[in-house]
Amino acid sequence: MAKKEKDVNRRPAARLPKGMRDIGAAELRETQAMLEKIRAVYERYGFEPLETPAFEYTDSLGKFLPDQDRPNAGVFSFQDEDEQWLSLRYDLTAPLARHVAENFQDLPKPFRRYATGSVWRNEKPGPGRFRQFTQFDADTVGAESIAADAELCMLASDALEALGIPRGQYAIRVSNRKLLDGLMETVGLAAGADPGQRLTVLRAVDKLDRLGPEGVELLLGEGRKDESGDFTKGAGLEKEQIQTLLAFFTLGSAAAWVGGTADGECYAGRPADDFLVLEPKPEEPGPFLDADAHDGYVFDNLKMLDVWGDILKDSAVGCDGIAELRQIVELAEAAGYGSQRIQLSSAIVRGLEYYTGPVFEAELLIPATDDKGNPVRFGSVGGGGRYDDLVARFTGQKVPATGFSIGVSRLQAALNLIGRAPEPTLGPVVVTVMDRDSLAGYQSFVQTLRNAGIRAELYLGNPKKFGRQLEYADKRGSPVVVIQGSNEREAGEVILKDLIEGAKAAAAISDNKEWKEARPAQVSVPVANLVEAVREILARHTPQSS
Amino acid sequence: MAKKEKDVNRRPAARLPKGMRDIGAAELRETQAMLEKIRAVYERYGFEPLETPAFEYTDSLGKFLPDQDRPNAGVFSFQDEDEQWLSLRYDLTAPLARHVAENFQDLPKPFRRYATGSVWRNEKPGPGRFRQFTQFDADTVGAESIAADAELCMLASDALEALGIPRGQYAIRVSNRKLLDGLMETVGLAAGADPGQRLTVLRAVDKLDRLGPEGVELLLGEGRKDESGDFTKGAGLEKEQIQTLLAFFTLGSAAAWVGGTADGECYAGRPADDFLVLEPKPEEPGPFLDADAHDGYVFDNLKMLDVWGDILKDSAVGCDGIAELRQIVELAEAAGYGSQRIQLSSAIVRGLEYYTGPVFEAELLIPATDDKGNPVRFGSVGGGGRYDDLVARFTGQKVPATGFSIGVSRLQAALNLIGRAPEPTLGPVVVTVMDRDSLAGYQSFVQTLRNAGIRAELYLGNPKKFGRQLEYADKRGSPVVVIQGSNEREAGEVILKDLIEGAKAAAAISDNKEWKEARPAQVSVPVANLVEAVREILARHTPQSS
Repeated sequence: MAKKEKDVNRRPAARLPKGMRDIGAAELRETQAMLEKIRAVYERYGFEPLETPAFEYTDSLGKFLPDQDRPNAGVFSFQDEDEQWLSLRYDLTAPLARHVAENFQDLPKPFRRYATGSVWRNEKPGPGRFRQFTQFDADTVGAESIAADAELCMLASDALEALGIPRGQYAIRVSNRKLLDGLMETVGLAAGADPGQRLTVLRAVDKLDRLGPEGVELLLGEGRKDESGDFTKGAGLEKEQIQTLLAFFTLGSAAAWVGGTADGECYAGRPADDFLVLEPKPEEPGPFLDADAHDGYVFDNLKMLDVWGDILKDSAVGCDGIAELRQIVELAEAAGYGSQRIQLSSAIVRGLEYYTGPVFEAELLIPATDDKGNPVRFGSVGGGGRYDDLVARFTGQKVPATGFSIGVSRLQAALNLIGRAPEPTLGPVVVTVMDRDSLAGYQSFVQTLRNAGIRAELYLGNPKKFGRQLEYADKRGSPVVVIQGSNEREAGEVILKDLIEGAKAAAAISDNKEWKEARPAQVSVPVANLVEAVREILARHTPQSS
Repeated sequence: MAKKEKDVNRRPAARLPKGMRDIGAAELRETQAMLEKIRAVYERYGFEPLETPAFEYTDSLGKFLPDQDRPNAGVFSFQDEDEQWLSLRYDLTAPLARHVAENFQDLPKPFRRYATGSVWRNEKPGPGRFRQFTQFDADTVGAESIAADAELCMLASDALEALGIPRGQYAIRVSNRKLLDGLMETVGLAAGADPGQRLTVLRAVDKLDRLGPEGVELLLGEGRKDESGDFTKGAGLEKEQIQTLLAFFTLGSAAAWVGGTADGECYAGRPADDFLVLEPKPEEPGPFLDADAHDGYVFDNLKMLDVWGDILKDSAVGCDGIAELRQIVELAEAAGYGSQRIQLSSAIVRGLEYYTGPVFEAELLIPATDDKGNPVRFGSVGGGGRYDDLVARFTGQKVPATGFSIGVSRLQAALNLIGRAPEPTLGPVVVTVMDRDSLAGYQSFVQTLRNAGIRAELYLGNPKKFGRQLEYADKRGSPVVVIQGSNEREAGEVILKDLIEGAKAAAAISDNKEWKEARPAQVSVPVANLVEAVREILARHTPQSS
């Protein structure tokens, strides 16, 4: 008895590791469909697939703690038999850099690669935040040309539209890391300046959405007292510095709305179709001059650059950033991608680390509410930018690179929330077992259906209770069950029961006798017509297919 | 200087972890196509996709060393923040058992699931043996019915044929774990007997391919001296025991070939089409009685069972195994899957661990040679069987289960070796850059092609040397490049150069001037006809597409 108890205690509990999840059929089918659509776009842009392993040497990923031989706690790490540290990849970019550095001579240059797969983060999990999730990246390595960045913005736009997100309900927001550097330089906080003050400024600006310009103004100056009475010390900037910062982050956007005629002919000299239009037309012009003189307002990326350029005119790096963005806008517009799809924005200039040039973010604009009816902002479902230093970590040689990454899991969750997930697929045809001795016959029905390309299966559980077979078919989402008792067998027939039509009636039936009397939503057909008859019922429930 | 040297030393070497590999575009596209074909078959059989995480708690996988709190060295393991051990999955079956135990109440029963993904083994890598590889599994959990096993054999057959392996060039070999148990019982070596002797017997039998019946006979008896003179002590069995064992493993197979008429009418009363036929007809009948009385010989699974059944008639477990196999054969034959596809074999009764009933293996029979011209036997490219104890590890409750797993990486390597890999896809159309100031125009050509669904890209490298752009296009496998210099721009035209036709001529051209004089395999078309003209050239090189 004691031994038996010990055995019981030794049984492991069946549980998922913390922050992990199993993904079921409906979601996986959606993911699969999404990946195929994204893949088609990336392929059309000439990117080539590459798969790197799930883990890399920790030093390859750059994930050792500074000045220590211990990996960063944010990644999952283990040692190999030679005591070298390995870590599960936390993104698809670091392994790409390793691959390029290792195979530089053999690669076509520029090297366009796409990759999809799981990445792992050893971070605190939360609702909707898992430790394993899927990314889908496209990167161009070895291209200095800003055309490489412009094309990634168009690719991001095409990918979202391929996934069924209508134009105007998303935005590819674009900025440039160099603008932030130029702005800091302009207000006297260049890289050499007090790093503490610089950080306080960035943090203040990052709260623009939450506190509004007034709150941020206080945080950039003396400080701000919040509703609870707590005081946050400010960055201590002068009034002029504060005005410059606020102008960049708020006025600039407003000034980029320019007037035009709404007859579809032209906005600022360019075709209206491609431009982001302000709707409804504002009653108070606000920053828009002579509102009455125009039919509407469009967002003009080039105008935005003029405003920013004016603010940053004394910073070389700022002007450089402006010039790069101008090239992106011009290339995109020439290819028909106006501000309705690709829109400059100061908002994403914040919070970026390894990027060295243009940066982009894909944002969903579709209004949505959560389970409790509260409005939800999806935020970013993808992003990227230019990173010119990643390969140099290995080789010492600068290799220009730029990339875009879709957060597949996140985007899918968003699409589900707004009800844009694809319809669930029908379950298989279930061939039921009325008579255990005729198993071979039932099996041959199944195989006949499968050979005709129809998804079908034999009921493999205990066939004794017929009602349970119908419950099973129901649980599987089966559109039709095939039934053959001894009477039907003698007549060379099978019964087909349309479960979608007959769902409710079936629930009340529990044994063979009752079944034979009721027969809801069912037909008898000769065995020879099995495939044809099943196809007819399936066609009834899948109107889009032929 | 010292600091600089230190920095240099700190640069990580760009290298793959031991036993890992990067997978390039051509192979990945093949894998993708393979996975889609396998998926279609598994779906048709009514299996539903499930994805479990890459790692599990080590105890869930059953991978702790016996009586120790340390994970088995064969898996990659690490500890989470609570010091619980986690391991990367080494197959897809153990995570399925965890999932079923955790969600038993909510699952439809029987539960049919398929899964594909990477698995990881911390084992010594070798040529073609990697530490990460892909499996594609289908399992039915909760079905006692042997029809579940029969169907997996048919599924395996259908999957291989869907991948383009012709019937007759593969075999789904089937046996039953219970036959081995029954055989041991029959020769007096039941589970309770001397485990050392039992093991020696199994090892001897496992050498049948290499040593032939004579060598194995010695190893089952007193022992065997090999060519170098070394003596291996035998199992010390009696002559009668040895004869029984050899009869089971060799004579049985021979006796299963039965005579029949070759007119396609019947073999042993069943249609000839589905049966494995011995070709050419043997000159010496050997074990085949009255060879002259028949036109040919076919492999008869039922006859095989008669022979085995005779040997195992005194063992209850053996008879049980025979009865299960008979059901599989009958169900398969009724559905049209004869011995040409699904063939009983004693060979796979050996070397199996956690299986409890029927076992299956998918083997390629296509003759092939390696790089040095030596004949290659592919061996197993997939396998599976019935395992009734895996879920019980968690719950204590026996849950019958059976599954089949394709070794995707291995099968793909085999298909490549026999030249059955799909044709490589064409590279993208490359739009070249003759004039840096016209980048927006070139970009719009690219976008026009992409919008028409044509794979296309802008040359993003330094455009100075035109020859390098052509080299790039060549390296990418591009079928056609688009060229527009100032003359063409003025005329509203573009030049299309067919790279496949003009490959050789292009190699000699290094600058724009020479190019303009030579113009091999190229046409000028109006810009408005770009898409149409490119489609024409593409159609020339992809005859199968429309």
